[in-house]
Amino acid sequence: MGNLEEYLDLVGADTITAIIRQASSIYGKHMLHLNSTYLGGGVAEMLSSLLPLTNDASVDAGWRVLHGNSDFFAITKQFHNSLQGGRLRLTRAKKEIYLETNRKFSIFTHIDHDMVVVHDPQPLPMIRYYRKSQPWIWRCHIDITDPNRELWEFLKTFIIRYDVVIISSEDYRKPDLPVEQRVIHPAIDPLAPKNRPMGDQEAHHILDKFGIPTDRPILAQVSRFDRWKDPLGVLDVYRKVRRKVDCRLVLCGSMASDDPEGYSVYDEVREKSSDLLEKGDLILITYQSNRLVNAIQRAATVVIQKSVREGFGLTVTEAMWKSRPVVASAIGGIPLQIEDGTNGFTLPPRDADAFADRIVELVRNPALCETMGTRARETVRQRFLVTRLLKDYLELFADLTG
Amino acid sequence: MGNLEEYLDLVGADTITAIIRQASSIYGKHMLHLNSTYLGGGVAEMLSSLLPLTNDASVDAGWRVLHGNSDFFAITKQFHNSLQGGRLRLTRAKKEIYLETNRKFSIFTHIDHDMVVVHDPQPLPMIRYYRKSQPWIWRCHIDITDPNRELWEFLKTFIIRYDVVIISSEDYRKPDLPVEQRVIHPAIDPLAPKNRPMGDQEAHHILDKFGIPTDRPILAQVSRFDRWKDPLGVLDVYRKVRRKVDCRLVLCGSMASDDPEGYSVYDEVREKSSDLLEKGDLILITYQSNRLVNAIQRAATVVIQKSVREGFGLTVTEAMWKSRPVVASAIGGIPLQIEDGTNGFTLPPRDADAFADRIVELVRNPALCETMGTRARETVRQRFLVTRLLKDYLELFADLTG
Repeated sequence: MGNLEEYLDLVGADTITAIIRQASSIYGKHMLHLNSTYLGGGVAEMLSSLLPLTNDASVDAGWRVLHGNSDFFAITKQFHNSLQGGRLRLTRAKKEIYLETNRKFSIFTHIDHDMVVVHDPQPLPMIRYYRKSQPWIWRCHIDITDPNRELWEFLKTFIIRYDVVIISSEDYRKPDLPVEQRVIHPAIDPLAPKNRPMGDQEAHHILDKFGIPTDRPILAQVSRFDRWKDPLGVLDVYRKVRRKVDCRLVLCGSMASDDPEGYSVYDEVREKSSDLLEKGDLILITYQSNRLVNAIQRAATVVIQKSVREGFGLTVTEAMWKSRPVVASAIGGIPLQIEDGTNGFTLPPRDADAFADRIVELVRNPALCETMGTRARETVRQRFLVTRLLKDYLELFADLTG
Repeated sequence: MGNLEEYLDLVGADTITAIIRQASSIYGKHMLHLNSTYLGGGVAEMLSSLLPLTNDASVDAGWRVLHGNSDFFAITKQFHNSLQGGRLRLTRAKKEIYLETNRKFSIFTHIDHDMVVVHDPQPLPMIRYYRKSQPWIWRCHIDITDPNRELWEFLKTFIIRYDVVIISSEDYRKPDLPVEQRVIHPAIDPLAPKNRPMGDQEAHHILDKFGIPTDRPILAQVSRFDRWKDPLGVLDVYRKVRRKVDCRLVLCGSMASDDPEGYSVYDEVREKSSDLLEKGDLILITYQSNRLVNAIQRAATVVIQKSVREGFGLTVTEAMWKSRPVVASAIGGIPLQIEDGTNGFTLPPRDADAFADRIVELVRNPALCETMGTRARETVRQRFLVTRLLKDYLELFADLTG
């Protein structure tokens, strides 16, 4: 991680050379990324990979993390949920904490960069507190097809100050937004601990440590215990599958400590699956470890992603990179990655029978798993690795400041 | 908070004017503070107050927070303890994680400031990863009179690259360190939620919410559940006091989630005090709230600080600011604040009888509490408020770059 040369064998000399050429048009320029956490979550992971590589390409890129307290993050978590369609009481107090946190951070955050990229809604209002003298980009990682109206109107007052909005999918384009909108797909880092090559021996050693036997085929969903990820639906699917083939289910995910609901979802999963837990059919894991996720995804015969909302679905990308067939909901960014029936399966999110049928089909047909898995990895290699993401950002930077 | 004018009535026009004059000698210059957390702990609190005020004085000051993972923070916590005299196995793996975290952060942290202030050991090695072109200051907030030898020699290899080391007390001066050492006392913000004026009614409302009755005199220690703070010793003291006067003990502190030991100390306190808890003589609070700390310190008849190590002891400063008599150990930075018998009492940290005697004396003598408390507040007003700290930093900045 951190050096372009390390990616040469994975993506080819053409890709690396294209990055170097692109960078040469913006030497001496400095871009800034601004988000709200440096640990946990897809955005922080992406920036952890992207920022060192951008600098390695000789383009200066800085990273600032907004300082918020627990009140602020409780509010922005509500914003996040309600941008995906949840309800919200948008009180004046919430707006004030949201704005004041941004304003205070701006006081000791001096921006003299050539381009600023603001990620997600938390630091969105930052733009209001500067005398703008460079292009500002709002990078929205969320599915915003059906946001809470009142919140959207409020956030729009900041968004319209931006030069460009980046979205993860064409489907998220907002006709009511008079700002240029570009699509950039997210990406994973094939050399990060969560994705780097891992031999069978190492993987087994890790699985063993966490009490995950590999004597039966494994189905796995790696996702927070959160209603958007529908872990209860996955249990239903598993019960249907289990009637036809012998296999085990692993649900691995954190409890979203910033989200009180996370605990209640986890508790509900436990309650409704005590029989499965007793028989050793289900294994629940809340320990957070990138290496463990890496091992689970590699050990799985089939990976499931039964989300009802998904901005892009980087856990799908991760599993595909490990040559796994993924059976997933046809929502959000997932159909951008999975071409149904070719490199995985996409299905209506609520159709537990369809999920079960596809999974059974795969478990019974190792050759199909292999074919789909190989295609899945190639899809990711060509379109969803961090080197492609780097090139997109350099192009954007050259485009807006060149 | 954040505007110099708000401090005018508290510290006087002379102090504010002196700050403005000092700032005028360094207009256009830009300093950078670098630490490892923006929430929790005295350093983060101080920077949260200092940085906006520095910018309000028209001197640019930025703030970067080092991105570390849990391994890194486990190691630097060990470093912290062993700089205060604890044991340490300084393995090659620990050194590597420590250095790599710093190196990686340096890649996307571009420093072109006129002065850099690095706080505490976590980001100390950052200096190695830059071509130095400005003064670098290491601000050490820890008591380093008796550090682990091996660790100190290792850290010295970085410290000697700095231009100036700032320590909290003359006692911490290291003769073996060939770097200029200056003393700057820490400070509190009288307008922060933890210290701002709070009426009796508001205080009682908060205490009530947390189940703290005020029908008997309150003794309080506000400190992490950590051996350095000796909460078990405070229990002993309380038992001795309780034989002579009727009062209640409140121990309020977080469990130091970055420190597994924190939980065991808390459990031990609970075990050894079940009789007191049952009778309502002791109230243990682990909820973290600045307003609650504010209310407890104001409600206490006597504040205790029975630490065995204390870099400076900002909790003592906070209580003194609220006109409380503090009975504290004569260690670390505490004697800089308390002149024994005048504005509080200082005692040998292990002498529970002496602690008990002084507390009984105070509880029985409200007039003495009042006199000492008034002097305590005046001590803090003159020497330990953030405006004085700001002036010290501006002087240092002018001195090194003027």
